[in-house]
Amino acid sequence: MPNIETCLSPLLFSARQTKDNYVVVVIDVLRATTAFCAALDRGFGSIIPVTGIEEALNYKEKGYQVAAEREGDKLDFADFGNSPTSFLSTNNIGDELVFTTTNGTRAIDTGKVADELITASFSNLTAVCNWIFNSNRNVVILCAGWKNTFSLEDTLCAGAIAEKLIKGGHFLPVDDATLVSKALWGKSSENLRENVRQSSHYQRLRSKGLDNDLEYCFRIDTSESVPVLVDGKLVNDKA
Amino acid sequence: MPNIETCLSPLLFSARQTKDNYVVVVIDVLRATTAFCAALDRGFGSIIPVTGIEEALNYKEKGYQVAAEREGDKLDFADFGNSPTSFLSTNNIGDELVFTTTNGTRAIDTGKVADELITASFSNLTAVCNWIFNSNRNVVILCAGWKNTFSLEDTLCAGAIAEKLIKGGHFLPVDDATLVSKALWGKSSENLRENVRQSSHYQRLRSKGLDNDLEYCFRIDTSESVPVLVDGKLVNDKA
Repeated sequence: MPNIETCLSPLLFSARQTKDNYVVVVIDVLRATTAFCAALDRGFGSIIPVTGIEEALNYKEKGYQVAAEREGDKLDFADFGNSPTSFLSTNNIGDELVFTTTNGTRAIDTGKVADELITASFSNLTAVCNWIFNSNRNVVILCAGWKNTFSLEDTLCAGAIAEKLIKGGHFLPVDDATLVSKALWGKSSENLRENVRQSSHYQRLRSKGLDNDLEYCFRIDTSESVPVLVDGKLVNDKA
Repeated sequence: MPNIETCLSPLLFSARQTKDNYVVVVIDVLRATTAFCAALDRGFGSIIPVTGIEEALNYKEKGYQVAAEREGDKLDFADFGNSPTSFLSTNNIGDELVFTTTNGTRAIDTGKVADELITASFSNLTAVCNWIFNSNRNVVILCAGWKNTFSLEDTLCAGAIAEKLIKGGHFLPVDDATLVSKALWGKSSENLRENVRQSSHYQRLRSKGLDNDLEYCFRIDTSESVPVLVDGKLVNDKA
């Protein structure tokens, strides 16, 4: 039976047990991995995740469309920030989208040593789980968190995935982090928005007036997209 | 109002927000920080935490009493492992005890950059909180975990401390990890042993037949000792 393990911060990835035949599932609910689905759903063919602002700027100067966010704000030179709702309301769609964010794209950079890497959010919860069921690999969930610290919303999404994978005895949880995430999700799922309201990053985005994004990011199964990293680009491998 | 922040693994200490006027509270419930209290209660004057086996061996060759554990087992050359109950049943007490463990003494090494460092467990929960109330410093709780990964029992102890400090509005929680630890403790405190039974390290020690230690480590307020790091040694600063 394949293992499932959870890293509650990118800094914990180096301490994982699972190192063979595994898929990394990167979660950054607010907002990068939710935005990836929205961008692919609106028609982008692929997303190029980059960690540095300079690299994103270089792409912009070459004519690429660029999404760039730091500290919750869109950078001036970019076409988009990391607001999922901004993608849903645009018609200005190209083929490739370069993407850099405070936490999500860095987590991808950390996890890319895996055999495969996908990204998850509440928006593609069921699609991601179906993809994993078909992959027959061990699973390492990698929560992006906020500047390498633990974040509640990513942990809850990790727990939602763990619950689906463990149910029916398909995957074996091998660490306390997976059991705790699953238990937290079990207690929070019925009133998700209410339960995340106290979290640091929810409050941070709320103070910026981003209520539309907050509403969207906690909606479950709005997308069937599964962003999969192939040759450095996230492409849509629908379940 | 002083802050309270929680690092769920030593690897997360570098990402903490709190860097001024703070006390680090190291937690390794199973079993180092529980054993520190037992050793001080039995009459040791101080504990010298060391990270390496070789360093512990050097002390042993100089005539010191040494407690040394790796992977849950006492090392052959040592007088003690890290079993708290082994201290309670011994009469062979010296002045100073050298101590090295898989996780706890390494967490002390990580946190010693703080203005002050104390160690906590369920056994000295109230004593630790009273000490912190008197210190008027910010608080960074540092869970030792297991080989740098998240562990349930340390997180629950962190939550128990957070609950006491936050109650009455004396300390301000500044991160999601503190809120989640506190919530987990709130849901687990009434039936603590039952709630930790699934945790990895509980199972590991259970398989070694260490039921006496497991029973002891989840008893609350068996000790009034507060081990405080002074010049590289843990000394007892009773609340």
